[in-house]
Amino acid sequence: MSLNNGNKTGKFITFEGIDYSGKSVQAQLLCQKLQDLRLPVVAIRDPGATRISEEIRRILLDNKNHEMSYRTELLLYEAARAQMVHEIIAPALAKGQVVICDRFFDSTTAYQGYGRQLDLDVIKQANMLGANEIVPDLTFLIDIDVHTACARRIKQEMSADRLEAEGLEFQNRVRQGYLQIAGEYKQRIYVLNGEQSIEKLSLEIIQHVKNRLKLFA
Amino acid sequence: MSLNNGNKTGKFITFEGIDYSGKSVQAQLLCQKLQDLRLPVVAIRDPGATRISEEIRRILLDNKNHEMSYRTELLLYEAARAQMVHEIIAPALAKGQVVICDRFFDSTTAYQGYGRQLDLDVIKQANMLGANEIVPDLTFLIDIDVHTACARRIKQEMSADRLEAEGLEFQNRVRQGYLQIAGEYKQRIYVLNGEQSIEKLSLEIIQHVKNRLKLFA
Repeated sequence: MSLNNGNKTGKFITFEGIDYSGKSVQAQLLCQKLQDLRLPVVAIRDPGATRISEEIRRILLDNKNHEMSYRTELLLYEAARAQMVHEIIAPALAKGQVVICDRFFDSTTAYQGYGRQLDLDVIKQANMLGANEIVPDLTFLIDIDVHTACARRIKQEMSADRLEAEGLEFQNRVRQGYLQIAGEYKQRIYVLNGEQSIEKLSLEIIQHVKNRLKLFA
Repeated sequence: MSLNNGNKTGKFITFEGIDYSGKSVQAQLLCQKLQDLRLPVVAIRDPGATRISEEIRRILLDNKNHEMSYRTELLLYEAARAQMVHEIIAPALAKGQVVICDRFFDSTTAYQGYGRQLDLDVIKQANMLGANEIVPDLTFLIDIDVHTACARRIKQEMSADRLEAEGLEFQNRVRQGYLQIAGEYKQRIYVLNGEQSIEKLSLEIIQHVKNRLKLFA
């Protein structure tokens, strides 16, 4: 299936969830699986992936920038995304490749819309600007409880970036926001229970990609 | 007059024009005049004025970033503006101060809309996001021929930044775009002939501020 993606022939798969949900690991495992099957895959993270997007990412995640307004934050995420779409996603899809992206515009809706509580119509407009109207073919939402996420962060002894430093209440608004979005886009978004083992999750994801996108038999 | 600016009580004056039109000098001269009259004035430039906006400005004007997409550029200008509105313009207007800004969203319409030829509706949406719906009370457009601008740059021995490095045809689309915008917002935008002397222009600007905004007798 190809949702509103113009002339593209490739497939666009995104991974979503709160931090420490395990989405980055799952994105990597899916990438590995598709590479093993000799499919042309591009795996990236949003914000990031291009030189300019990484420069923008640095401003976004810098703890020093505590005075950043929510609108500035929103527009910077969209700017970083616009560059990634322009340089990487749109060309790869046009060449028929599979693009796997760790976060995309659903993150903006969840974090800036539900987390920061910015107007959802404003977010929608901004998302269309940043994504240049490219919509994922399939999105995996890995859902975990915020306490599980917090325990994993402590276990990994990671320090929090500017967004992670928001409290549990914020993270919970983001989690609930994600579930809300998944309810609205049932055709596109597949929700997984992130409390399962890495291996079980990976098998479920690969099975779903196989059934839905018919990329391999 | 106060156009659609919510609860604001101050006055918001912007200066527009192509580079080397003399707008920055005129913004400074008006600021000086109002300060001499003991009016509370804040003078800033867009993009810039705040720490975060200056970081964004650096990415925007860096000649190294030649691969930047037009949408990324648009969104970065809006992000820098959103921070400036949040930290400086909105608070100053709320306190009843006069804000003088060297460039604001008309620059985006002229450069990214008419210059880069991005869709004007997209620009309008983006401008409302960045400005948080704050609209200048009065805008001075200093109009000069692109050849005059070019001759002034050579005389000042300045090197061109990423946008200035665009050719004369681009600069002319921007100039014509500005005149188009001025035609659409006649109430707000006052067009001046930038080929006049600095002193004559300054007098005309001060006279117009006096008549229109009634800030002084």
